[in-house]
Amino acid sequence: MKAEILKLLKATPDFVSGQQLCEGLGVSRTAVWKAIRQLEEEGYVIEAVRNKGYRLTSSPDVLTAPELKSVLTSRWLGGELTCLYETDSTNNQARRLAEEGAPEGTMVVADCQTAGKGRRGRNWASPHGAGIWMSFVLRPALAPVQASMLTLVAGMAVVSGIRQAVGLESMIKWPNDAVVRGKKICGILTEMSTEEDSIRHVVVGIGINVNTKDFPEELAPTATSLSLELGRPLKRAPVIAAVAEQFETYYGRFLEKGDMTEFMEEYNRMLANRDREVCVLDPAGTYRGTALGIDREGSLLVKKEDGSLASVISGEVSVRGIYGYV
Amino acid sequence: MKAEILKLLKATPDFVSGQQLCEGLGVSRTAVWKAIRQLEEEGYVIEAVRNKGYRLTSSPDVLTAPELKSVLTSRWLGGELTCLYETDSTNNQARRLAEEGAPEGTMVVADCQTAGKGRRGRNWASPHGAGIWMSFVLRPALAPVQASMLTLVAGMAVVSGIRQAVGLESMIKWPNDAVVRGKKICGILTEMSTEEDSIRHVVVGIGINVNTKDFPEELAPTATSLSLELGRPLKRAPVIAAVAEQFETYYGRFLEKGDMTEFMEEYNRMLANRDREVCVLDPAGTYRGTALGIDREGSLLVKKEDGSLASVISGEVSVRGIYGYV
Repeated sequence: MKAEILKLLKATPDFVSGQQLCEGLGVSRTAVWKAIRQLEEEGYVIEAVRNKGYRLTSSPDVLTAPELKSVLTSRWLGGELTCLYETDSTNNQARRLAEEGAPEGTMVVADCQTAGKGRRGRNWASPHGAGIWMSFVLRPALAPVQASMLTLVAGMAVVSGIRQAVGLESMIKWPNDAVVRGKKICGILTEMSTEEDSIRHVVVGIGINVNTKDFPEELAPTATSLSLELGRPLKRAPVIAAVAEQFETYYGRFLEKGDMTEFMEEYNRMLANRDREVCVLDPAGTYRGTALGIDREGSLLVKKEDGSLASVISGEVSVRGIYGYV
Repeated sequence: MKAEILKLLKATPDFVSGQQLCEGLGVSRTAVWKAIRQLEEEGYVIEAVRNKGYRLTSSPDVLTAPELKSVLTSRWLGGELTCLYETDSTNNQARRLAEEGAPEGTMVVADCQTAGKGRRGRNWASPHGAGIWMSFVLRPALAPVQASMLTLVAGMAVVSGIRQAVGLESMIKWPNDAVVRGKKICGILTEMSTEEDSIRHVVVGIGINVNTKDFPEELAPTATSLSLELGRPLKRAPVIAAVAEQFETYYGRFLEKGDMTEFMEEYNRMLANRDREVCVLDPAGTYRGTALGIDREGSLLVKKEDGSLASVISGEVSVRGIYGYV
């Protein structure tokens, strides 16, 4: 009920009468009053004026289920929603829920990860309040080999969602990151469980640095946050809602063909590596070239210095920019 | 300790003195006596003669940890061993253990599965005492796309293990089954968990019909068991030990190249479908042809009626024999 009250209060810049709330939700005045009191305890500032009703004047930056449900605009993503104050990693938690049968669209959000994961087993710093640490459970009717493209789909959703929510332009660093001015603002980690040649579930994890002020010395040159870029603190819930809405749309379009055919142009416009000189750290031998963009399977096409084309498969190699951080 | 006592007793056709057992295991006579009593309670028949010692005259067909440990000859497979009287499915149990960090080589064996799984979500009947229902946890340093070949590797191990343990010739029905005279005697189900482009774990599940006497009417024409084929009841533990030993060898060889190059000839000799007319149920259109054998990626090469070659990827299609059951 708190989610519905928040939704109504957020939808109305003016006062909402107690009677409207009671009738809208089909509950008693006492129930509404109790829920308002609880919301105030959680940090919401709600003006209450006799004969006028309630008005929300300020929301805290909390990632509770009522707060998220009051802002989510996705149709099915987040239909099952788990909000945790702290967890080891939202991917781990989402995987545990998926193993127990959690449906497609289950969303796990945590205020803090004690063992946040990056790519290749790296640690991902995820302190309280500093960012968005969330994971989606998906059950696409795809072959396992197609699932790696979901990382690219999530990348587009992050770039579009950040633009929609806070107006900041970010770009994709193929395959797993989003960057602003060459500095990492988001990482994506996709896990999968298969049975023979069918997917049991996929977990897409998204970490976005939102209010991080200070990065450890070794990360400072290559990492940034939304608030550092915009010069003001930000609320995380609206960013989550925008990324979720965008993901739902991109994912739906992706499932139609199961490859990146429809997205190549759009993805390549978002691609920070595009037309840049890159160094491909292939286990078989490092080489330089120019990144041209992705192909329909999501591989990165690189024009080598000898003019030949290489198709770089995610995971096989690392791609490093030569100029700047991208 | 029961496993060590069993091992010593099994290694000696004659009597083993109590003193030998005590010294061999570094325990007291009372401890040996107690263990012998427990073994007798579990169904072992152990002759005890004053001044001579103990002699094992008969073993029950039980799948307990002491029994399996006393017969396993694999070096690392089964190093961690979970024996269950009943479980939902050994693949599920192995997956749960893998999620908790179980190491490569963890083996799960159950006397009965209440929810045994076949391919494509089908049920696999797994009653008490009737068969081998077991799963291995593997953590190979392979790309996810290579893991589907582990089903083929397991198929070779099953055919070789059955031959080694009971002298029966079976063949592989590509990709997931072993058959005798065209009737299914074994099914293999491989599951995987990945993180980006690396494998977290693979679970290979193997179900072998050993002492099944009666199959349900709908399965009777297409299923058989080792004991139906050989005309006598069989002990399951030695078959498990032989399949595990064979799997360990084939798996080690497979990891060297990560594909089927080294196995193509051997695999194709075991292949029931080879040179047979098959019907390929491709979602894009059913067609007939002759199965030639696997290629180095483990796909089945089929020569179509028009003379062209098709490479059939596991999971994409079903392959049905036209004559007989294979």
